[in-house]
Amino acid sequence: MISPASHALHDPRATPGERTIIDHIRTRLPPAPASLIVAVGDDAAVAIPERGALQVLTTDALVEGVHFDRRFSSLADVGYKAIAVNVSDVAAMGGTPSLALVSLMLPDGTSLEDIDALLDGILEMSGIARVAVAGGNITRSPGALIVDVTATGHVRPRRILRRSGGRPGDALYVTGSIGAAAAGLEWLQEKARLEADAAASRGLRLHPDDDGLAACVGRHRRPEPRLRIGAVLGRARVASACMDLSDGLADAVRQIAEASGTGAAIDASALPIDAAARAWFTARDRDPVDAALSGGDDYELLFAVPRKTARRLRSAETAARGVPLTRIGELTTEPDLIVDRDGRSALLPRGFTHF
Amino acid sequence: MISPASHALHDPRATPGERTIIDHIRTRLPPAPASLIVAVGDDAAVAIPERGALQVLTTDALVEGVHFDRRFSSLADVGYKAIAVNVSDVAAMGGTPSLALVSLMLPDGTSLEDIDALLDGILEMSGIARVAVAGGNITRSPGALIVDVTATGHVRPRRILRRSGGRPGDALYVTGSIGAAAAGLEWLQEKARLEADAAASRGLRLHPDDDGLAACVGRHRRPEPRLRIGAVLGRARVASACMDLSDGLADAVRQIAEASGTGAAIDASALPIDAAARAWFTARDRDPVDAALSGGDDYELLFAVPRKTARRLRSAETAARGVPLTRIGELTTEPDLIVDRDGRSALLPRGFTHF
Repeated sequence: MISPASHALHDPRATPGERTIIDHIRTRLPPAPASLIVAVGDDAAVAIPERGALQVLTTDALVEGVHFDRRFSSLADVGYKAIAVNVSDVAAMGGTPSLALVSLMLPDGTSLEDIDALLDGILEMSGIARVAVAGGNITRSPGALIVDVTATGHVRPRRILRRSGGRPGDALYVTGSIGAAAAGLEWLQEKARLEADAAASRGLRLHPDDDGLAACVGRHRRPEPRLRIGAVLGRARVASACMDLSDGLADAVRQIAEASGTGAAIDASALPIDAAARAWFTARDRDPVDAALSGGDDYELLFAVPRKTARRLRSAETAARGVPLTRIGELTTEPDLIVDRDGRSALLPRGFTHF
Repeated sequence: MISPASHALHDPRATPGERTIIDHIRTRLPPAPASLIVAVGDDAAVAIPERGALQVLTTDALVEGVHFDRRFSSLADVGYKAIAVNVSDVAAMGGTPSLALVSLMLPDGTSLEDIDALLDGILEMSGIARVAVAGGNITRSPGALIVDVTATGHVRPRRILRRSGGRPGDALYVTGSIGAAAAGLEWLQEKARLEADAAASRGLRLHPDDDGLAACVGRHRRPEPRLRIGAVLGRARVASACMDLSDGLADAVRQIAEASGTGAAIDASALPIDAAARAWFTARDRDPVDAALSGGDDYELLFAVPRKTARRLRSAETAARGVPLTRIGELTTEPDLIVDRDGRSALLPRGFTHF
């Protein structure tokens, strides 16, 4: 919990005292909801569970040098994204987020301003997701800055969206657009490379004056979890299976198909590839379909819709408030994972792995 | 959740694939309890909350180089302790642990054998604490091995043990003994120093052939959370305030007094200092009282007992099954934090801080 953690082996430098940090965080937290009986500052948080609901629990970490680069994302972006990727997992179960525990691992030299910036992002996304920061932990890190978040939520029984509920013939839908976060990250990486070699960069224009590319960078920094859509997909019992696209669409298709014991066929021409991302990949002689299928970090939802519940899709469309829901293929009896493209079939790419 | 996390910026080496690790972990987990509806392998875990109970939530991380040293602790010890320190926090709230989420941050070169060793410890302590591993997350770490655990538990309303419930006149009790974990760590550190300078070490005997010192090392590696005592202190409504000694007794006294708006007076002669730890500190010309008050990692419980509930202490003594409950002082109206010793009063040492 946010309280001095356990015994340490090394002495610290420069980072403000733990008590100072905790006291500071407490002053910045909004008033705890009535359901949160004990919040930050005790051994543990205590909360009233939602009546008649099941408890959803998930954890996901952002590690400096693995999931973010401080040259590309502000600390506020990192805090925002750490909450976003966790509530996205709750939404992908058909749940509604409730609480977050924030575990901060801070390298020496972290200032109170740094912590404030992290909190800016944490509190902004928590506000959007209506999640209360119930506690956490603060400790030193010998190297990387790490923000590890656990989110809880609630879901009604029979409204849980597992990965394993899909059946052959169910249509596959994806929310929003894909490929944008990957294109945004690539742009940031290319810009950094060119800036490191200033001579080579002369004459090159890499400022995202293109609104679309700027939006791609924004998607990498601050993904928008599909909270409302996930909750409605569960509530209206539209979807037989669902997961979020943290590791890309190809990975999500593979996982839903494997967990459901089906194959899948994807129609490449139907994929809602972000227009600026498509232009970016094409300009670099990359296949935009492969790049968009494999790129991670989109945090859209992939879900399967049985024929008999398809008419209930309208409630999800209403909840989506303009975010498109695109049919991209279906689950199949044949166990293969196929992409149909220009009349030919190919195997689905492996997708993104970070090991 | 234990599933590929988000997009990574770097490519990895040598560590087995994430999917391989997750599949391996799944084979090693015992069958999930009926209350765990969705366990490892989906976006999030889903569990049935305990009826009529409040939910307890806590998180605590063990970071290599900060909380443990691989020369001193096996990976099984690290896994064991990562669960122990979290369920200790649940017990310190008067709660009973239910679930654990395990977030592993693995440096390059982590083998499946390493993960198995971590799991050995995680599953051993989870079995003791009757905690089900409900999920988690696996990601690369650019440096340190980190095991960050979130534990949940349940507690009946009105049986929560906060830090803030103490009143002047309440007696302060501590479970078990103090100073052992700190002495054990010091012994390990001194041994490592001497081994590094082999010449100087010739003729020195640092093997803990002394059973007491070996037990101190064991306390550093595998603290024993006071689960039963914590649950009974809440259930029998014996204690007005409680916390665990992760950062030492001096720190815990300070925190309970501050949160309760009281002072505290500790009787040095009453402190249950571990005998081997006392001998270790004394042999090194250190004041054993100061060392035991300041040393962290004991994971005993400090609790306050009002006069009117003192007779209910017996139920806690029964639950303690031979672990002593020692009266060490009381909360006071005067705001100072005092140690009484040989007829003189001194201020309580600051205690352990790891920032």
